[in-house]
Amino acid sequence: MTARNIKLTIRYDGTGYHGWQVQPDADTVQGRIADAFETLTGQSVRVNGSSRTDAGVHAQMQVANVHIDCPVPTENFVKALNQRLPRDIAITEAVEAEQDFDAISDTVSKRYRYTIYTAAIRDVMGVRFCWHRRGKLDVELMSQAAGLMIGRKDFKSFASAADERQSSVRTIIDCAVSGEKDYIYIDVQADGFLYNMVRNIVGTLVEVGRGRWSPEKITEILQAKERAVAGQIAPAAGLCLMEIEY
Amino acid sequence: MTARNIKLTIRYDGTGYHGWQVQPDADTVQGRIADAFETLTGQSVRVNGSSRTDAGVHAQMQVANVHIDCPVPTENFVKALNQRLPRDIAITEAVEAEQDFDAISDTVSKRYRYTIYTAAIRDVMGVRFCWHRRGKLDVELMSQAAGLMIGRKDFKSFASAADERQSSVRTIIDCAVSGEKDYIYIDVQADGFLYNMVRNIVGTLVEVGRGRWSPEKITEILQAKERAVAGQIAPAAGLCLMEIEY
Repeated sequence: MTARNIKLTIRYDGTGYHGWQVQPDADTVQGRIADAFETLTGQSVRVNGSSRTDAGVHAQMQVANVHIDCPVPTENFVKALNQRLPRDIAITEAVEAEQDFDAISDTVSKRYRYTIYTAAIRDVMGVRFCWHRRGKLDVELMSQAAGLMIGRKDFKSFASAADERQSSVRTIIDCAVSGEKDYIYIDVQADGFLYNMVRNIVGTLVEVGRGRWSPEKITEILQAKERAVAGQIAPAAGLCLMEIEY
Repeated sequence: MTARNIKLTIRYDGTGYHGWQVQPDADTVQGRIADAFETLTGQSVRVNGSSRTDAGVHAQMQVANVHIDCPVPTENFVKALNQRLPRDIAITEAVEAEQDFDAISDTVSKRYRYTIYTAAIRDVMGVRFCWHRRGKLDVELMSQAAGLMIGRKDFKSFASAADERQSSVRTIIDCAVSGEKDYIYIDVQADGFLYNMVRNIVGTLVEVGRGRWSPEKITEILQAKERAVAGQIAPAAGLCLMEIEY
């Protein structure tokens, strides 16, 4: 038997987890999927996920690959793993990938959506998937500010201090703000993200939306290359990984 | 000060609660709202709710009334109570009602919606609010069967044994089945419901939808006046109280 390389597509409600990545004594999505593989196959595997989503962040589409040497047919993995996963995590697809496919390094772009709910009274059914921030926000001004994020730029001002990667230059392919009734959606697509980058962008766009900053302030913030000049970080609950392109 | 009669409209995700009604040593929606009143006003009140929804059942619109003798202006109750309630319960409206308004006995009709998700893989974001039952169901046949429920009839076959009310005659005003992608919705409006009645109706309609019973079987089940002849009870998670008419 040759070890196969299985590409998994995964969806989760991240509310109850300490994020994607395995940590000692913490319940994580990666850990749960590794456990499901272990009870299914008896093998300990490394679930190599494209995005290390934070505690409380959700995924409509996370992608991971797993090298495994077992007789389970690929088409059976979805059902068999889902039976061994909690109800807030689901494998939506499992396919056999090329031996050299790597869910992290082969990523071309990722798209996140951030949801803000602006009504006075919380939406009890959707509260796990949004930031309930009371009060109107100017979608038009936020859109203008979002447009200034697009391009290959140094996003150091939007990276939390914990980010230790060497370069903070990334390419934002799209950054768009839309409104629908009491909901505001911020969609950001990039070739890669710094630690907390989307949540820091959202916190900054909210300052524009509430009229504290003009859209042009974005250019100034980008130039400063200093976290303290941007807006506060937005809560995790509103963030959802939507799509990964390979 | 004369005691006022406050009419509350309430919304909740019932997943984490042992139903509406206060019980010893159990976390209930009614109990949480009573606690919120007590911390706000220092008074112990009875929250008289229209529907005693079961454990795990949700409400888009529950109605209750509370007699209270306190100086808090009615328009402040929504915000003040919501600050004292968990995030999965919200007061959406508080108005002053006539002294003799009673949320239970003044109810003219109630409408419930039951949601079934039929796709192979669970919807992790919506799993709290539906019954994930894999496999196609025939909406057309279910609709025919649902139509036979409408009218003033004895629904004893759809009442769980725990129901000790004298009469099991109720009027179903509407009972409709609709499908949208992988979701099936069953909407039932009646002047009143027996214990577990909607969930027993849903379990029965599912037997029709999967082809085990013909729609005409409904007439036979109604005539039998015996719980055992109807379908199995559907899970609580799919049920939501949608509207109460006064």
